[in-house]
Amino acid sequence: MRRIRLIIAYDGTNYSGWQIQENATTVEGVLHDALSELLSDMGHDGEVELIGASRTDAGVHAEGNVAVFDTEVQMAEEKFAYALNARLPEDIRVLRSEEVSDNFHPRYTPSHKTYVYQILNTRIPIPTLTRYMHHLYEDIDINMMRQAEDIFIGEHDFSAFCSAGAQVKSKVRTIESLKVYEEPLSGFGSGTEKGEALTDSANRGKIISIVVTGTGFLYNMVRIIAGTLIEVGLGRRDIDTVRRAILEGDRTDAGPTAPAKGLTLKRILYDTDQ
Amino acid sequence: MRRIRLIIAYDGTNYSGWQIQENATTVEGVLHDALSELLSDMGHDGEVELIGASRTDAGVHAEGNVAVFDTEVQMAEEKFAYALNARLPEDIRVLRSEEVSDNFHPRYTPSHKTYVYQILNTRIPIPTLTRYMHHLYEDIDINMMRQAEDIFIGEHDFSAFCSAGAQVKSKVRTIESLKVYEEPLSGFGSGTEKGEALTDSANRGKIISIVVTGTGFLYNMVRIIAGTLIEVGLGRRDIDTVRRAILEGDRTDAGPTAPAKGLTLKRILYDTDQ
Repeated sequence: MRRIRLIIAYDGTNYSGWQIQENATTVEGVLHDALSELLSDMGHDGEVELIGASRTDAGVHAEGNVAVFDTEVQMAEEKFAYALNARLPEDIRVLRSEEVSDNFHPRYTPSHKTYVYQILNTRIPIPTLTRYMHHLYEDIDINMMRQAEDIFIGEHDFSAFCSAGAQVKSKVRTIESLKVYEEPLSGFGSGTEKGEALTDSANRGKIISIVVTGTGFLYNMVRIIAGTLIEVGLGRRDIDTVRRAILEGDRTDAGPTAPAKGLTLKRILYDTDQ
Repeated sequence: MRRIRLIIAYDGTNYSGWQIQENATTVEGVLHDALSELLSDMGHDGEVELIGASRTDAGVHAEGNVAVFDTEVQMAEEKFAYALNARLPEDIRVLRSEEVSDNFHPRYTPSHKTYVYQILNTRIPIPTLTRYMHHLYEDIDINMMRQAEDIFIGEHDFSAFCSAGAQVKSKVRTIESLKVYEEPLSGFGSGTEKGEALTDSANRGKIISIVVTGTGFLYNMVRIIAGTLIEVGLGRRDIDTVRRAILEGDRTDAGPTAPAKGLTLKRILYDTDQ
């Protein structure tokens, strides 16, 4: 038996999240169907089990989710990506396929996940941007948000940053880095000639990105951190309340769960690959 | 009578271009319907005429197209944007509305239009990017493209860069600037801490942007320039052929029309506003 690892990217807009469900279209469901067909065509007997790394919510995007399956099918490891893409809709792509050790597990092998939460802060939303960004009309003070960055970093009990319904024993998680970035509206990177050439547009504003890396996350944790930082940036929640949320674990001390569309799972880096 | 100017942004994916058509959904058609309803509700008598600046093709996006209409309706100039947005689908937004002089005309008042053509140059397309970028598998040499930048700049007969069907007397146009930019795959701007943190992904590659500003463009001109520059970057068309295309006006010396989805009309700057 060989264990094949897939790196998967998707536009989550039209999916009810990653995890397979009875009466809804999910990324895992569509990928599982394509994989079952492919392996069956190649002579694989029986059901195929797909194990995913991150069960992203409905509407959340990914540029690097990870899944594995075991098969006896003889095909060059990198070919599975191309064969699957030929059977998948355009909004799901397998970016890479490769053979990994039998011991590798997408969820249990220690890893570092990087998520980005993007906010479009303009007077009026721009349709070419809002598919992957949460639009906010009110002017956000990014310096306020930056003052709260350090509060999240390290090993903490993130009970206040977890939606009800999570079935986990411990709510202690480690955030390795969290940074808030600001870009001019052109989207071409700050300070470049290209950026400068286009900033004098009708709808001045900025794009804010919250980039967070950690070894594990609770249900809705990144979206609640984003919702909390947004309230801080709007002057509606002070830094001390955020500190207390971490110390005391009261969900009401954290902000609301920010909308799914702004969140993208960027990358999962495994310790075994470094 | 007041003349009201609208700055309009749209995701062109689901539209058969700007210009109103009988049996197709177009941006102008949808905007005209919303405007007619709004003005009629406000007591405006008779048909409303909408005059657009750029008749973008099917699938082309805009972050700053311009249109005007005349009305006697008394409403604060900036309110038209909000009132129209309440009646428009989410993939069309009026970014600004303002009263302009009766002499202002979206097409005849001298202006500078900026278009961006975006290319995703990776092994496998990334679904969160390909809605607004043309995906190319083969590695493009951006330095080759840059060598061709200057050929286009200035006043030239662009007959070789115009699709058949254009009903114009003169094919002389002026390109004021043309620049080819490269960004790392993270999309966060080159050389930034954020960019660096995410470039080690499964699907290494780059985003190429062709930014072109001119006082007027022929039918499909920007897309044919992009198609030509792509061939130059792939080593399939040499710089001398591109020079000859400008000098002799033979369409076969230029490249193919690059796909619509990669093109965005970024901004139109009028001389009367400077």
